Amino acid sequence: MKTVSENRSFEGTQGVYSHASDACGCDMTFGLYMPRLAETMPVPVVWYLSGLTCTHENAIVKAGAQAFAAEYGVAVVFPDTSPRGEGVADDESYDLGQGAGFYVDATQDPWAPHFKMWSYVTEELPALLAKNFAIDMDRQGITGHSMGGHGALTIGMSMPDRFASISAFAPITNPTASDWGRKQLGAYLGDDESTWQRHDATLLMREHGFDGPVLIDQGGADQFLDLLKPEALAEAMAAKRQNGAFRMQPGYDHSYFFVSTFMGEHMAFHADALGA
Amino acid sequence: MKTVSENRSFEGTQGVYSHASDACGCDMTFGLYMPRLAETMPVPVVWYLSGLTCTHENAIVKAGAQAFAAEYGVAVVFPDTSPRGEGVADDESYDLGQGAGFYVDATQDPWAPHFKMWSYVTEELPALLAKNFAIDMDRQGITGHSMGGHGALTIGMSMPDRFASISAFAPITNPTASDWGRKQLGAYLGDDESTWQRHDATLLMREHGFDGPVLIDQGGADQFLDLLKPEALAEAMAAKRQNGAFRMQPGYDHSYFFVSTFMGEHMAFHADALGA
Repeated sequence: MKTVSENRSFEGTQGVYSHASDACGCDMTFGLYMPRLAETMPVPVVWYLSGLTCTHENAIVKAGAQAFAAEYGVAVVFPDTSPRGEGVADDESYDLGQGAGFYVDATQDPWAPHFKMWSYVTEELPALLAKNFAIDMDRQGITGHSMGGHGALTIGMSMPDRFASISAFAPITNPTASDWGRKQLGAYLGDDESTWQRHDATLLMREHGFDGPVLIDQGGADQFLDLLKPEALAEAMAAKRQNGAFRMQPGYDHSYFFVSTFMGEHMAFHADALGA
Repeated sequence: MKTVSENRSFEGTQGVYSHASDACGCDMTFGLYMPRLAETMPVPVVWYLSGLTCTHENAIVKAGAQAFAAEYGVAVVFPDTSPRGEGVADDESYDLGQGAGFYVDATQDPWAPHFKMWSYVTEELPALLAKNFAIDMDRQGITGHSMGGHGALTIGMSMPDRFASISAFAPITNPTASDWGRKQLGAYLGDDESTWQRHDATLLMREHGFDGPVLIDQGGADQFLDLLKPEALAEAMAAKRQNGAFRMQPGYDHSYFFVSTFMGEHMAFHADALGA
C-alpha cells in the first residue's frame, strides 16, 4: 500500500492510498478519513460509495463528511467506483466501464477480468483497512450516492451481520427496471436476469429488508428521478415495515450541493447506530 | 446578469451568475450563496476572495461555507480571481495574469486594459449585488485564502466604513517583500514601489490597523510559509494592538482541507460582528 497524499482535516487525517488489487487485477486508489480519536483507540467506519463518473476523490472534496466524522469519531472510507488503467476494458459512454462498476462482480467479457467491485468492496478493501488502520471492523455502516447508493443498499442488505446501518443519497433503487441498471447488469452479468436480482435494492428490500435502520434522502428536483425510481424503494420499505425513513427533500437536485446538505444527518444516523 | 446555475443547498440557493463587467472589460462570473432567510429579509454578506489559480468555483465546492451561511443567515459572495477570456492578457506562469489578479487595478501594459480587480470587487460587483439580491449592504465582512487573504486584508483595511470584520486563511501578508507579490505588483503597478504599499497587509496594519476585529488562521505545515510570511503580519497586529487573533494551526497545510476545517469558526466570527 502506498500513500498518495495525507492532509490534516478537522484534527484528523484525510488520506489517499493506492495498492495492487488482486480482486480487480490493477492498482486501486481509495480515500480514508481517520479522525483524531483513532490515535487513541480503534474507531467505527462508514463506507461511502460514489456514483457514476466519480473516483475516490469527489466525495472527499465535495461531500463535507470530515467535519462530522471528526465530531463523532468515525472513519470514512471512499473507494473508487471501478477498476482503471490501460489494460482495463472501457466503454465510450459515461455509464458503463471505467467509473461505472455498479458494485458487481462481472462474469461477462470484456468486463470479467477486472470488474470485481463487489469483491473489492466487501472483501479485499476491508481486509486492507483492518490490517493497516486503527478501525474497529465490528462496527461498520454504509452509505453512498446514486450508483453508490445502489451499492450501499445492495451490499448492506446482503451482509446484515457486517453493517449496523445503511443510508443513501438519491440511490438507484430498482436497476432491474431502469436504464440505469438494465444496460450495466446485462453487460456485466449477462442476459440471465435471475443473476441481477441480488443487485436490486428494491427486490432485496421486498425479500429481506434489513435488521438495522435505513435512511434515504432523495432530492425532489433531481434531474434523474425517472432513472432512480425512488417510489419503488419507498413502497418496498413501507411494505416490508422497514425500520427507517425515506425522505423527499423538495428543491434539491442530484448534485453534491444536495449530498453535502444532508451529510451531517447521515453521519449522525450512522454514529448513533454504531455507538460512536 | 445571466444565471449560470442555481442549486439548492442547506435550504438556500448556491447560484453562479455572469455579467458583462465594465471594470474588467470582459464577462465576469461569480458565485453567490443566499440563505433561506433572504426570502424574508435582506441579509448581511461575507466576501470570500480566492487564491492563485482559483476561479469563483473552488470555494463553492470545497470550502463548506454554505452550512454556516445558512445557520447564521448570511450571504457569501465568491468573485473570480481575475478577468478572463481570449482578449485578456495572460502569462504562462500560474502566478501572473489570468487566475492571479492580486486584487489590484493594473496601470501597466499589457495588464491595464482588463486587470481591475480592485475596482471590480469594491465597486462594480457590490453595486450589482445591491441591485439584484436581498443583501443588506450596510453589513459586510470579508475573508479569503492565500492571495484572497491578501485581498481581504488590503481591501478590508482600506474600507473600514464598509467592512465590520476581516478574516483570512493563510494570507499573503507582506507581498512587497515576497516572491508572491514583488513579481505581480511590479508587473501590474510598475517599478515605483510607493504604489505597492497600499496593497501590502502588513504595511497597512502597521499604519492603520482596522477598527473591527481581525481573525487569521495559518497552517503550521503550510508548504508556502516562506512566501506567505505570517510572522510579518503577526508582528504588525501585535505591535498595532489590533483587536483580533492570529492563530497558528499545527499540522495543517495550504489546501482546502485546511480552509474547510476552520470555515465554521470564520463564519461564526463574521456573523457575530455583523449581528447575524
